[in-house]
Amino acid sequence: MAHTLGEIRQQLFTSVLSDCLDSVGHSNQAMPSRIRPLDEASVLCGRARTAAFIESRAYDAANPYALEIALIDSLKRDEVPVFACANSLQVAPWGELLSTAAKARGSAGAIMDGCVRDVKAIRSMNYPVFHGGIGPLDTKGRATISVIDEPIICAGVAVSSGDLVFGDADGVVVVPQAIEREVLRLAFEKVQGEKNTLADLQRGDLLADVFARYKIL
Amino acid sequence: MAHTLGEIRQQLFTSVLSDCLDSVGHSNQAMPSRIRPLDEASVLCGRARTAAFIESRAYDAANPYALEIALIDSLKRDEVPVFACANSLQVAPWGELLSTAAKARGSAGAIMDGCVRDVKAIRSMNYPVFHGGIGPLDTKGRATISVIDEPIICAGVAVSSGDLVFGDADGVVVVPQAIEREVLRLAFEKVQGEKNTLADLQRGDLLADVFARYKIL
Amino acid sequence: MAHTLGEIRQQLFTSVLSDCLDSVGHSNQAMPSRIRPLDEASVLCGRARTAAFIESRAYDAANPYALEIALIDSLKRDEVPVFACANSLQVAPWGELLSTAAKARGSAGAIMDGCVRDVKAIRSMNYPVFHGGIGPLDTKGRATISVIDEPIICAGVAVSSGDLVFGDADGVVVVPQAIEREVLRLAFEKVQGEKNTLADLQRGDLLADVFARYKIL
Amino acid sequence: MAHTLGEIRQQLFTSVLSDCLDSVGHSNQAMPSRIRPLDEASVLCGRARTAAFIESRAYDAANPYALEIALIDSLKRDEVPVFACANSLQVAPWGELLSTAAKARGSAGAIMDGCVRDVKAIRSMNYPVFHGGIGPLDTKGRATISVIDEPIICAGVAVSSGDLVFGDADGVVVVPQAIEREVLRLAFEKVQGEKNTLADLQRGDLLADVFARYKIL
Amino acid sequence: MAHTLGEIRQQLFTSVLSDCLDSVGHSNQAMPSRIRPLDEASVLCGRARTAAFIESRAYDAANPYALEIALIDSLKRDEVPVFACANSLQVAPWGELLSTAAKARGSAGAIMDGCVRDVKAIRSMNYPVFHGGIGPLDTKGRATISVIDEPIICAGVAVSSGDLVFGDADGVVVVPQAIEREVLRLAFEKVQGEKNTLADLQRGDLLADVFARYKIL
Amino acid sequence: MAHTLGEIRQQLFTSVLSDCLDSVGHSNQAMPSRIRPLDEASVLCGRARTAAFIESRAYDAANPYALEIALIDSLKRDEVPVFACANSLQVAPWGELLSTAAKARGSAGAIMDGCVRDVKAIRSMNYPVFHGGIGPLDTKGRATISVIDEPIICAGVAVSSGDLVFGDADGVVVVPQAIEREVLRLAFEKVQGEKNTLADLQRGDLLADVFARYKIL
Repeated sequence: MAHTLGEIRQQLFTSVLSDCLDSVGHSNQAMPSRIRPLDEASVLCGRARTAAFIESRAYDAANPYALEIALIDSLKRDEVPVFACANSLQVAPWGELLSTAAKARGSAGAIMDGCVRDVKAIRSMNYPVFHGGIGPLDTKGRATISVIDEPIICAGVAVSSGDLVFGDADGVVVVPQAIEREVLRLAFEKVQGEKNTLADLQRGDLLADVFARYKIL
Repeated sequence: MAHTLGEIRQQLFTSVLSDCLDSVGHSNQAMPSRIRPLDEASVLCGRARTAAFIESRAYDAANPYALEIALIDSLKRDEVPVFACANSLQVAPWGELLSTAAKARGSAGAIMDGCVRDVKAIRSMNYPVFHGGIGPLDTKGRATISVIDEPIICAGVAVSSGDLVFGDADGVVVVPQAIEREVLRLAFEKVQGEKNTLADLQRGDLLADVFARYKIL
Repeated sequence: MAHTLGEIRQQLFTSVLSDCLDSVGHSNQAMPSRIRPLDEASVLCGRARTAAFIESRAYDAANPYALEIALIDSLKRDEVPVFACANSLQVAPWGELLSTAAKARGSAGAIMDGCVRDVKAIRSMNYPVFHGGIGPLDTKGRATISVIDEPIICAGVAVSSGDLVFGDADGVVVVPQAIEREVLRLAFEKVQGEKNTLADLQRGDLLADVFARYKIL
Repeated sequence: MAHTLGEIRQQLFTSVLSDCLDSVGHSNQAMPSRIRPLDEASVLCGRARTAAFIESRAYDAANPYALEIALIDSLKRDEVPVFACANSLQVAPWGELLSTAAKARGSAGAIMDGCVRDVKAIRSMNYPVFHGGIGPLDTKGRATISVIDEPIICAGVAVSSGDLVFGDADGVVVVPQAIEREVLRLAFEKVQGEKNTLADLQRGDLLADVFARYKIL
Repeated sequence: MAHTLGEIRQQLFTSVLSDCLDSVGHSNQAMPSRIRPLDEASVLCGRARTAAFIESRAYDAANPYALEIALIDSLKRDEVPVFACANSLQVAPWGELLSTAAKARGSAGAIMDGCVRDVKAIRSMNYPVFHGGIGPLDTKGRATISVIDEPIICAGVAVSSGDLVFGDADGVVVVPQAIEREVLRLAFEKVQGEKNTLADLQRGDLLADVFARYKIL
Repeated sequence: MAHTLGEIRQQLFTSVLSDCLDSVGHSNQAMPSRIRPLDEASVLCGRARTAAFIESRAYDAANPYALEIALIDSLKRDEVPVFACANSLQVAPWGELLSTAAKARGSAGAIMDGCVRDVKAIRSMNYPVFHGGIGPLDTKGRATISVIDEPIICAGVAVSSGDLVFGDADGVVVVPQAIEREVLRLAFEKVQGEKNTLADLQRGDLLADVFARYKIL
């Protein structure tokens, strides 16, 4: 039985998904610690829509943002733009205007290994953004999207449009479609086991005893 | 007509200033994303007063902080100490005592590519500090100011005493005096255009249509 | 007369301890600025219990966390696990379960130069954690503890079990046992001097005059 | 009167070109020191042909190197492939086979901010390669060319197909076509001045006197 | 039929081994480009013997090098010490004396992600060393071996004692024992195909034609 | 009895000096591995003459190199300019002309944590230069010397004019004047012990036996 995105968002978290990805042999699915949420209280859960930037001073003066616009205007509910930036901290490919447009289409959030700007405005919109840094520099004249909806590598993790992406205060994990069902099954199971472990530790049991009991840490 | 620092502080923000600096060909005026505000709610707007450190174990035992003191005691209303630190994260050249002294002179905040310390106390003073990191290490025996009020490069951006410096949650931009009037004129214009763009996106218009309408993104 | 950990926690802070460590010739006792508290309001003050990781894909399937468990289950009141991680940001050796178990033993907090996970849960427990980053990756299959309670170097600072460790919003300092008494004596003295300096600066005195008066900055 | 590539290669060098680029206000034309020649004795002088990579695990199994092949097979005499690599040191987009094919077309050398492999074979061919590192990893399954002959940024320097690229033991400089004539004129002049300065210093004159005489250092 | 280490050393090279490791799905077997040979003409081919360091100021004054000595004195012909250094560039765990002792046992070379010292002497011995840097600092008081002959991660690559390690001017690859036979079979095949490709390119054939002919690049 | 610089240059080397500095408690006297000799065959032994740069776009158009010239023209036999560069790899403060002028004064070489240029010419002069990188960018408009002959920190090591500086293929060590006599005494002793160790290892003795015999490794 498939889980809805709403169930996943409410009941799972990045740590348990990361552990279950590990347990099926996919140990490179978590973005590194430099990718952070704009708001640590936010939870992002949706389907990736990918874009990759290359660095360039050149741009089409008539429409320097053609592919950004194409991607954002085609977003469907719960989709998540995932931007791979050629040189991540020199540009901020995401800001208030794209957040506003994406949210209006039902987007579940955005992920990028480059910078984000207009962060006060975005936080006040409750639109989850996971980013590599905060800075004001526009992409125009610095970088340009070369492809959209192609498989990319963002912050070291392979992402294809349609992959499940999940982010919370602990970071971002990507669940490839081919193993999504198996990973989610394991994760919903493990969440229950962790609750038992936690309860026993809270009442003061020794870790050695609790680990012997549940084999979870 | 010149804008007052109060008007600039209230109506502008780093993203729009960065875009307008770009549009007049000054694309290296934003400090990198590692320079962060101590308090993301704060806005810094003032005139730079520069100092540069060199690393050294030596110091004048009688007065190891002579140039810090000279700079701080000579601050005028709305001036902003900008400290270029030779090895930014090994020392914290700014803390509660300098913040207190600078604020008493009317300083609008401080910027450094090194560390800041006493951060809880500084936050409670509502004195804006933009920094390269947080750490407790004093400069004494680690670094020393070699010049004040000379043109420096702080966090990769050239700054001269008198330049307009502006910082908010998105980072820090420096507006050289020679282009200040032109950049401010463009920025006040662009702020209005962005409001129109935002309103149309909020009601659900497609980015493609809104961009065609206002040519702003 | 020795100071209690409670007095130290309430009256001292990392900046003053760092300055006093400097003044007795120990200038490498502060962890670098990349080691941050999970909660900037927290203060950690306790006695170190050390562990060092080495990177490895191998683990004992029956008990991959044997030494973590041995260390945590043997914690005494006010002790602080200090984890030196071989490759700090690739693994998160600390999370909600270890925090819960450690807190149940009376631990005063934890310090690591690797990542921490489950950060929302840990923050809600009011258990101080100082870390090199936030990320979801478990150590199993990535790194393993090779020794506990041996002298280590964590984030560049030598730490032995029993050393006084102190952390607050400004970072972490380690006070070696051999100089603890002297450093604490100096620190309690300096705290009083800084209060005088601060008061005079708050009423608008020039730094030059205040520094001449108290020789503290 | 225009200089031939042969005259430029024989008489100029990167330092003098860099100084002359500085003197016409183009101070960001030298690649950083991490870009090194495979053979410090080689001199590269030619016209850029650009390509940009994006990171991706995906590739066309039938022809994973389609754009590499298109670029190399279309090289004309004295042209220089310049490869901007999305994540420079994870892949080696250049090796013995591409060197052989490019040299057979008359290429003057190759430049990349990624890695090169097969370095012993390439050195023995006397084909100049400037690179960001040496490593064996193929691009297939790691990165893919997304565009060729578009303006790119390689190692931080903007490059367009047709630009003059010059490399020697001191590194690589890029001379944009729009200023090429002026920069070359200045460089041929400065080379003569430096010879005079050098001769006077070699006979033991003081720097102060020699600098006063020629204003060159 | 198994290949001897001598055949492997003479006929294979890191690029072809890396490609064949890729083709069987092991894409993380090459050490990064910062690991370099002391002498680019050397070829290292042997069986790993692993050790892992942890950083520590403490050491056993009576025998600070106990595990180094145990490992080196137990080396058999063609074995290769592989040292994982906790903080690679702060210490030089390898030098002339260890090289001399290891070579006397028949060791085929040494690999470390830390520094090496006494490099002029080692080069004159024709003993292959692959290292992360060159520097004079002894490990004593800086780092200590915590385990030998356990599975480790050196420069990001998992290595177990007994694994085939191969290094040349292009870097270092590790071939795990479980896939060694298959990888070697593919590599000896591919070497022949590359010779054909190379010959055709040398006579001026287009890359497109040659790639269509042999499917090798 | 004091040793002459000639004896030190001929008989000692950085590794043994580093070990002896360690043994008298000075463990931070070796520059990091990124500081390399232009020519690995060269040996530098002399007395430091210090200078420190700060980054700045400004310069005195009439004499942008005033302090460089003052330092170089005042060099005495065996003195060694040591340049601390504010942002080491963005500028090349040393090149052929300064090498020529310094060598004409009898300078024993130069050390900098920034870049060097004109490296082919300098190598052919047999003038030892130890540097942080190679690149063509002039300091004019990028950095400026702010002090000469003051105590500085170069590549993390404190250096004062008059200190003994020693460089060879293994790197650079700085011997402070206050401990020079003691360190040299130990070093000349240790050199002899290492010869014995080496001879025994070369004839095949076990490390364990040789270490027991001489206590040197």
